[in-house]
Amino acid sequence: MANIFGKLFTITTWGESHGGSIGVTIDGCPPQLSLSAQDVQTELNRRQPGQSNLTTQRQESDQVEILSGLYKGQTLGTPITMIVKNEDARSQDYRETKTKYRPSHADFTYHQKYGIYNPEGGGRSSARETVGRVAAGAVAKKILKDAFAIEICAYVEQVHQITADIDEDIFPSTTAIERTPIRCPNESAATQMTACIEKARTQGDSVGGTIVCRIKNTPIGLGAPVFDRLEADLAKAMLCIPATKGFEIGSGFSGTRLKGSEHNDPFIQEEGQIKTETNHAGGVLGGISNGNEIYFRVGFKPTSTILQKQKTVDHEGQEAELTAQGRHDPCVLPRAVPIVESMAALVLVDHWMLHIAQTQAFNF
Amino acid sequence: MANIFGKLFTITTWGESHGGSIGVTIDGCPPQLSLSAQDVQTELNRRQPGQSNLTTQRQESDQVEILSGLYKGQTLGTPITMIVKNEDARSQDYRETKTKYRPSHADFTYHQKYGIYNPEGGGRSSARETVGRVAAGAVAKKILKDAFAIEICAYVEQVHQITADIDEDIFPSTTAIERTPIRCPNESAATQMTACIEKARTQGDSVGGTIVCRIKNTPIGLGAPVFDRLEADLAKAMLCIPATKGFEIGSGFSGTRLKGSEHNDPFIQEEGQIKTETNHAGGVLGGISNGNEIYFRVGFKPTSTILQKQKTVDHEGQEAELTAQGRHDPCVLPRAVPIVESMAALVLVDHWMLHIAQTQAFNF
Amino acid sequence: MANIFGKLFTITTWGESHGGSIGVTIDGCPPQLSLSAQDVQTELNRRQPGQSNLTTQRQESDQVEILSGLYKGQTLGTPITMIVKNEDARSQDYRETKTKYRPSHADFTYHQKYGIYNPEGGGRSSARETVGRVAAGAVAKKILKDAFAIEICAYVEQVHQITADIDEDIFPSTTAIERTPIRCPNESAATQMTACIEKARTQGDSVGGTIVCRIKNTPIGLGAPVFDRLEADLAKAMLCIPATKGFEIGSGFSGTRLKGSEHNDPFIQEEGQIKTETNHAGGVLGGISNGNEIYFRVGFKPTSTILQKQKTVDHEGQEAELTAQGRHDPCVLPRAVPIVESMAALVLVDHWMLHIAQTQAFNF
Amino acid sequence: MANIFGKLFTITTWGESHGGSIGVTIDGCPPQLSLSAQDVQTELNRRQPGQSNLTTQRQESDQVEILSGLYKGQTLGTPITMIVKNEDARSQDYRETKTKYRPSHADFTYHQKYGIYNPEGGGRSSARETVGRVAAGAVAKKILKDAFAIEICAYVEQVHQITADIDEDIFPSTTAIERTPIRCPNESAATQMTACIEKARTQGDSVGGTIVCRIKNTPIGLGAPVFDRLEADLAKAMLCIPATKGFEIGSGFSGTRLKGSEHNDPFIQEEGQIKTETNHAGGVLGGISNGNEIYFRVGFKPTSTILQKQKTVDHEGQEAELTAQGRHDPCVLPRAVPIVESMAALVLVDHWMLHIAQTQAFNF
Repeated sequence: MANIFGKLFTITTWGESHGGSIGVTIDGCPPQLSLSAQDVQTELNRRQPGQSNLTTQRQESDQVEILSGLYKGQTLGTPITMIVKNEDARSQDYRETKTKYRPSHADFTYHQKYGIYNPEGGGRSSARETVGRVAAGAVAKKILKDAFAIEICAYVEQVHQITADIDEDIFPSTTAIERTPIRCPNESAATQMTACIEKARTQGDSVGGTIVCRIKNTPIGLGAPVFDRLEADLAKAMLCIPATKGFEIGSGFSGTRLKGSEHNDPFIQEEGQIKTETNHAGGVLGGISNGNEIYFRVGFKPTSTILQKQKTVDHEGQEAELTAQGRHDPCVLPRAVPIVESMAALVLVDHWMLHIAQTQAFNF
Repeated sequence: MANIFGKLFTITTWGESHGGSIGVTIDGCPPQLSLSAQDVQTELNRRQPGQSNLTTQRQESDQVEILSGLYKGQTLGTPITMIVKNEDARSQDYRETKTKYRPSHADFTYHQKYGIYNPEGGGRSSARETVGRVAAGAVAKKILKDAFAIEICAYVEQVHQITADIDEDIFPSTTAIERTPIRCPNESAATQMTACIEKARTQGDSVGGTIVCRIKNTPIGLGAPVFDRLEADLAKAMLCIPATKGFEIGSGFSGTRLKGSEHNDPFIQEEGQIKTETNHAGGVLGGISNGNEIYFRVGFKPTSTILQKQKTVDHEGQEAELTAQGRHDPCVLPRAVPIVESMAALVLVDHWMLHIAQTQAFNF
Repeated sequence: MANIFGKLFTITTWGESHGGSIGVTIDGCPPQLSLSAQDVQTELNRRQPGQSNLTTQRQESDQVEILSGLYKGQTLGTPITMIVKNEDARSQDYRETKTKYRPSHADFTYHQKYGIYNPEGGGRSSARETVGRVAAGAVAKKILKDAFAIEICAYVEQVHQITADIDEDIFPSTTAIERTPIRCPNESAATQMTACIEKARTQGDSVGGTIVCRIKNTPIGLGAPVFDRLEADLAKAMLCIPATKGFEIGSGFSGTRLKGSEHNDPFIQEEGQIKTETNHAGGVLGGISNGNEIYFRVGFKPTSTILQKQKTVDHEGQEAELTAQGRHDPCVLPRAVPIVESMAALVLVDHWMLHIAQTQAFNF
Repeated sequence: MANIFGKLFTITTWGESHGGSIGVTIDGCPPQLSLSAQDVQTELNRRQPGQSNLTTQRQESDQVEILSGLYKGQTLGTPITMIVKNEDARSQDYRETKTKYRPSHADFTYHQKYGIYNPEGGGRSSARETVGRVAAGAVAKKILKDAFAIEICAYVEQVHQITADIDEDIFPSTTAIERTPIRCPNESAATQMTACIEKARTQGDSVGGTIVCRIKNTPIGLGAPVFDRLEADLAKAMLCIPATKGFEIGSGFSGTRLKGSEHNDPFIQEEGQIKTETNHAGGVLGGISNGNEIYFRVGFKPTSTILQKQKTVDHEGQEAELTAQGRHDPCVLPRAVPIVESMAALVLVDHWMLHIAQTQAFNF
């Protein structure tokens, strides 16, 4: 079940980086949602390779085709399968990796686990797999928007040593984020980040950073006590994105340095609604959304593929040197923004369905 | 399914803080494991309230009884139910919280979600629920130890502003950790942390901090590509522990500030085994354990219950003041150590079963 | 997960026949359902041993205690654990079965599968396990009744060679069914069945038969296309009851002898509602309830324990003879009636929650 | 999750009858299985429309393409997606069914449940969906054959009033079954069945019948106690095949008329192996395979689509008449044979993986 995500709104992604195509099947989609290939394409274009100098130069048009689950522009409630062709695979770039393990990549562990692996472009472990997530996430985002006007907005907050100063009191606009290829709403920081990434590329090196995701207009009640807490499922959703190393919600690790009297969020009344004065919680109390903005941060390591000579071993365990070929992102963050949003949207749709199932199915 | 954790080795916890008892059922336990109530009791004693001045003074002996699943000291492969009686509930301490929401607690969201909640001792949202996790975790730890000699060791690394300096090259001994009530293997830091917590208690305040968890002797192959990555399931396991706000594995958030050339872990050969020279990965590559030490960190917020007067609202949304009664931990970290270990053990057992199922069931 | 049933309204049963107690945990119960131990006890009394001469004479009061999940007589939405003590176990009756496999029992397969088994009273494979199902089923039945006035009614239709003639046009009353210990609403057939069972008991033999289950007032929409068809989940629910060998819905096997022109159920309008004129379908079309009465039949083999000398083998595979001791039902059917109803109720509650989750969670 | 089947070896089918294509994704397939499109095609050809006069004349070549999960002719352990194009859809045949519900079809319940349905060719409720099941079943069958030499063999036993006499002591050969288009190994009965189906076709009518499935060389230990009994999961697998109305295992409903002393299967030793003398159990004891032949029967109703004028209602509930158009099977049984085998194979593979996970993952 390793390739299935979600309990009621489930997605199954499939496909290898250099196979003929890649895709996703959504099971459990609500019926009667208006949906077109264009709704999905818009999001796919945000994670498309080659969209700027900051990303890999692999040329993939990433045109999605919806194979099932629609009738006259509406979802049927049946599985929605979406497919994208792989157009620009270059297997020749992976000759060396057929016998040598790339450092900090999945080649070694896949090979050990399964006794076989596809070395071309990372096979299944390639970030190209996330095409399916973004396609499914586009559907989830549309559900949330159409039903609740929920807005999910992620942006790059930090690249390497550069951290953007972003006002937490203002919910950033999509326009502000999409204005720069780096997807950071602070333009001056964006400029520095861009320079940093370009420098890394020139050096054949790579950089990491953090993405913040914020969600507004969430209803109260998303999530559940004990194991299926909303933040726990968001953490899983984020940590299963390639290259992620950390997750924190609300005050996160810095909140561990506050006292309870500083950290607690007092309840207040605002226009007849119960809110909290501060939001150290990040929108979740006891595992359940409290109606405040959901706020979390995800850490991404520097891209593992670098164009410098590296020490490694070959399949026989002999020491070897490897200089990667291929086209790669010197920094995954700009393209990871829609992936973070997609995974968050999937969690929210699933949790809302679970919430309604338990609390609204019966009227006693 | 919010109270069920795991796919093959599943646990279901049940019970409210002030109900008559609390417990857990394990389904899917391997047969023929030697197991006694004492094996479980040892771990429960580590999370028991009242074990030191640093914890709540609620007096619970937390004696576990195993109701099913054993025959002549061995597991049958059938469900193992374990129960612990609640002995020292004081409902009178929760009179006010029947009409006023405690800040940063789950009262408000539970009430909104379900239209009903048990205000006594936090009901289901109480950390007392973790009794069941630690009991089940004790079984998981025994499985891992008996089968692989896997050692799972967590300790307190930071309390409020105090961070202990701990040598990452030495795997800490249980003795060193259990030497102090705070469960920090650096004795000088432990002394400062203790003083910090006692000061917070005196002030009717609370503090948070971080716990590090390290796991050695893990086989290669735990975890899976894409969604069920080992680190993703560990993240979920940690973020569903009460009061947690963050998770990072290996280099974590600080690794986001390194370059790829600094962060990548070169493969080396050591006594015929393929290892990595450094361990920025934290023991996981592409979602799968690589045989190195698994290393992750969990952030805990300061305890939400403080004995100072706080601003809040009542059930009608009217502003109110609340001064908490009851016996509480001014810092949850020392008692959270066995909980972190337990959740980690549950994830590992489950993933090993999943791994064997996919890769060893058939011999082609 | 072998001891967990259901997707959203899940139950986990636990306990061995001769362990100290036996029980069940419900996870996912809707909140705010009025529930008392008495609601559950009423159903448990229907499956209680010793209730008549037709059943085993093991004396178990089967008093249920609800350990969690309630507050002031209402469900909290948290796990409901219910426990029943085993009071009248007689391990001495099972001395021989510690070395010899009882024919048509689970001893052999359990032993082979797990390398260990509890021979006392059948351990986990004992029908005593169904205490937990009936307790959980009582909750499910109450949900269905309180929310929809759904009535689930099962009765014994056939015992050995005696088949009762029962008018399919009249929905039988509980009174009519509970009037006789055999739970067959046709009194003359009930008398013959009783005599048949008593004769079998005298001979140290056993008999089987069929139970019919009928459900009225079901809403349209229960079930799902493809794999999770309502009839498929009912079939699984019935075939996981001990001693069952067959399931058929609507016209069942006899319908396979009709032509399409005879078998098809024409749609008609009745008081503004679309119904079908006949009900060969048994209330389910394309896997989804159509609002008609749900009608299915379950076949039970004769009880495996007989008090006659039987041929078997011992643990070493040597041929042996075995004469069972212990107290047993010469016919399981009367006590299986509430089990069939319980499993049906569990399926319906789960499917309604699934239905609402997919179709009512969002309002586009 | 209604379109996902299995726990560890899971399949997700997708696609509508008249959509552009139809397919399946397998998740959890063991790695290093030799697999080619031809292995799958062979099975698909057995369920292909137009293969004889007994089936629908819709012309579909049903050529499968494997889109992912293979590398150099071996499975990778990653998702295997297989796709088949729909080539001969004739939407014009379904004009009337856009406003009138077809009797005994899923149109009405789909429409009521989802508020929308695809009337063309039955959309998702079409038996065309089973293409995906047979493709996945081909993989499961290959796993079972390569690893254990398990043979799964289904055949038509009864059509309408004609029941073939088939020797239960001889395991039928594939050759004998595939010799006739009806797939009944008794040639004389096959001739009568063929005549019966052709007569029904001429009359614009349809007929049903039964299929027997037998499995040999199954290892002991498949299945689990309580809910996930092997027979329960087989029952679910069969009852989720379109047009099925009943399932019985071993002695089935006729066994309910035997006494315990007649029905019990004595254990014997045969060449050092423990077997049973008779097989009323059908190969399963206590929910777990006992090493004997697994034997079960499935009942299929007569095809719902008949070419006679029928009474029905339209979408407004007004009474109407409908005469079906389109190309249909007057009897689904010959093409259902590979579907039954496929579903059985899927259950067995899944259960073996579950068995190994619980019993072989750890060595204490």
